[in-house]
Amino acid sequence: MNAAIVGVGATTFSSESGRSELALAVDAIGAALADAGLDAADVDGMVRYTYDSNGFPALIRALGVRGLRFFSEVPLGGSATCGTIAHAAAAVDAGLASHVVCFRALNGRSGVRLGRAERHLRGGADEVVCAGEQMPGGVYSAPYGLLVPAQVMALWAQRYAWQHGIPLDRLARGLGTVAVTQRGYAQANPRATTYGDPLTLEDYLAGRMIASPLRVFDLCRETDGAVAIVVSRADESRGGVRVLAAAQQLFPYTEALPAYAPDVTATIPPWSTDDFFARAGITRDDVDVLGVYDATTLSVLFALEDFGFCGRGEAIDFVCDGGTTLAGRLPTNTSGGLLSEAHVHGLNIVMEAVQQLRGASTSQVAGAEVALVHSRSASLVLGR
Amino acid sequence: MNAAIVGVGATTFSSESGRSELALAVDAIGAALADAGLDAADVDGMVRYTYDSNGFPALIRALGVRGLRFFSEVPLGGSATCGTIAHAAAAVDAGLASHVVCFRALNGRSGVRLGRAERHLRGGADEVVCAGEQMPGGVYSAPYGLLVPAQVMALWAQRYAWQHGIPLDRLARGLGTVAVTQRGYAQANPRATTYGDPLTLEDYLAGRMIASPLRVFDLCRETDGAVAIVVSRADESRGGVRVLAAAQQLFPYTEALPAYAPDVTATIPPWSTDDFFARAGITRDDVDVLGVYDATTLSVLFALEDFGFCGRGEAIDFVCDGGTTLAGRLPTNTSGGLLSEAHVHGLNIVMEAVQQLRGASTSQVAGAEVALVHSRSASLVLGR
Repeated sequence: MNAAIVGVGATTFSSESGRSELALAVDAIGAALADAGLDAADVDGMVRYTYDSNGFPALIRALGVRGLRFFSEVPLGGSATCGTIAHAAAAVDAGLASHVVCFRALNGRSGVRLGRAERHLRGGADEVVCAGEQMPGGVYSAPYGLLVPAQVMALWAQRYAWQHGIPLDRLARGLGTVAVTQRGYAQANPRATTYGDPLTLEDYLAGRMIASPLRVFDLCRETDGAVAIVVSRADESRGGVRVLAAAQQLFPYTEALPAYAPDVTATIPPWSTDDFFARAGITRDDVDVLGVYDATTLSVLFALEDFGFCGRGEAIDFVCDGGTTLAGRLPTNTSGGLLSEAHVHGLNIVMEAVQQLRGASTSQVAGAEVALVHSRSASLVLGR
Repeated sequence: MNAAIVGVGATTFSSESGRSELALAVDAIGAALADAGLDAADVDGMVRYTYDSNGFPALIRALGVRGLRFFSEVPLGGSATCGTIAHAAAAVDAGLASHVVCFRALNGRSGVRLGRAERHLRGGADEVVCAGEQMPGGVYSAPYGLLVPAQVMALWAQRYAWQHGIPLDRLARGLGTVAVTQRGYAQANPRATTYGDPLTLEDYLAGRMIASPLRVFDLCRETDGAVAIVVSRADESRGGVRVLAAAQQLFPYTEALPAYAPDVTATIPPWSTDDFFARAGITRDDVDVLGVYDATTLSVLFALEDFGFCGRGEAIDFVCDGGTTLAGRLPTNTSGGLLSEAHVHGLNIVMEAVQQLRGASTSQVAGAEVALVHSRSASLVLGR
């Protein structure tokens, strides 16, 4: 595709921004445009998460954007993260827009907490929000107490362990290693909300059990903050990070309840990852760095298996052998990820992949040329 | 763009379908796929209105779609109609999907009535809906009684008349001519909800005043029904209607209250229509037929002026001289439009443009080769 990421920007990540989500969005977008060497008046496309509280009219007025020729929304929350970039890339490739801003802004800790079974008033209208109800199929599972993502993912984890005959202490070691590895990356990243707060496997194992087998350290941060990413035509930008391939994925059993799905331990059934890599003009071996939407540690295991970096049921071996560390085969979530940097509904994972390909990560993979980014219902291959 | 509309389909249009919006969507999509010679298993992309009650997971399961590689949502209601096609066209052009379904399904008369200031429970969750609050900026104007689209558009009409020094009886004659002309088209269209119910200018003038200067016949139908449209790559489809150009438009004052906007009587400020036609490889003179999202008669006047088919303030002359009739310069809304065929949130207007270019309209424009379709916040040029 004729598309490149030419700018990234973010606000400070915190537990209480003290600012509106509109102000956060404007700041992150301003930073991304400055990074791209563009002005608000250059922007003619924009992609938002359907869940974001910032509508387009108020946002473009606040930014000074003159008008949009392309705008879209991506449903399904953080799992759709990479879908925002896919839409933007398609728009510039097809000539519908020249410079498209993707963004996510949320007071995820001081405002609506997606991780809790709370109900909230949102925006000006009387819209009520509860994460459990918003999950696909949530209306059927909420009455039985399946109210928050951690509970759903705990069921996935149990199924995964059962399916592959993994004892729970072994599962804990695997998940814990993901948590500890990413917390390690965060110690090099001053932006991370856990910077200066390292984690050992002993700490992990002593962590409070939230929804068995998931402990508190298996779950991502809740964060106030915003991230923005600017996508432009590759042939008209210099030094941008190329979007080599993009795909969303939605299959008929994208529901909360594992009982509905033929296999809850795989996240990308609709298409072959070999084909996906081929469309990007690469092979699996070319991938230098991985970014995963890690709402839980489990997501990292799934992604490693889904994309064939190890066999089914073998991801625990992969991570316990150091496969996702800087010295390993596939450094993963090198900013600390949602688990240890911040939860900006996934968009900070895309930002980190861009930083890696620019050689600007705080945990730089030497010579990184290709990054894979995966957010359950969308994936990207980015190239230098 | 390498994109073509290869199938269209619709349910019966009625005032009480007696069926769920899911069933309506499935039927219309099934009809569109059959029209395209495709199967549900061929579909790998889908675009929905953000307002639609049908989420992707339940819908693709009901249809038998195996998986989606592209999915997006278009906000802003009917004004975004053509945006669904723009997204689909970009997706197939950029290679993100092969066959993309755009759809809208609503029980717009027996269910939630967008034209009324009602509040409703929607779907399984406790989401409340009131059209006035959902309009951009509606939260600021609703407390003052600006609750439904007709009230907003009445203010636009008053402004339009004031701006161009048009007496109210002259305005009524212009708007009435739009209503009568389209009702005439509907008398040839058995699908239209006003089929067999013709309208004269006298009938129009005797119509109940809803929000001055708009009478009941200035306002579109409220309809139960669904429409679906399938977009595929042009180079891999035979006989499809080409998407020659597509653009959305959103400007900083897309709000309900005219007081905020520099000019409420123009609907497409962000880009030049000359450029838009040039991107389609045509000139204005090549346009054979026009489709307009006509929530009110006024929208037709605005579109004629916005795209330069007549000067500012001159659209009443254009329509009173028969310019939008089958014998006129630019036959417009030849199915009867939202005013007299049905309100399916605009997508039936796109369907009619396709029928014209196939030579299959019930009010066929002889030799029609190019259609312009405009829905306030998005536009298409379609070609045979």
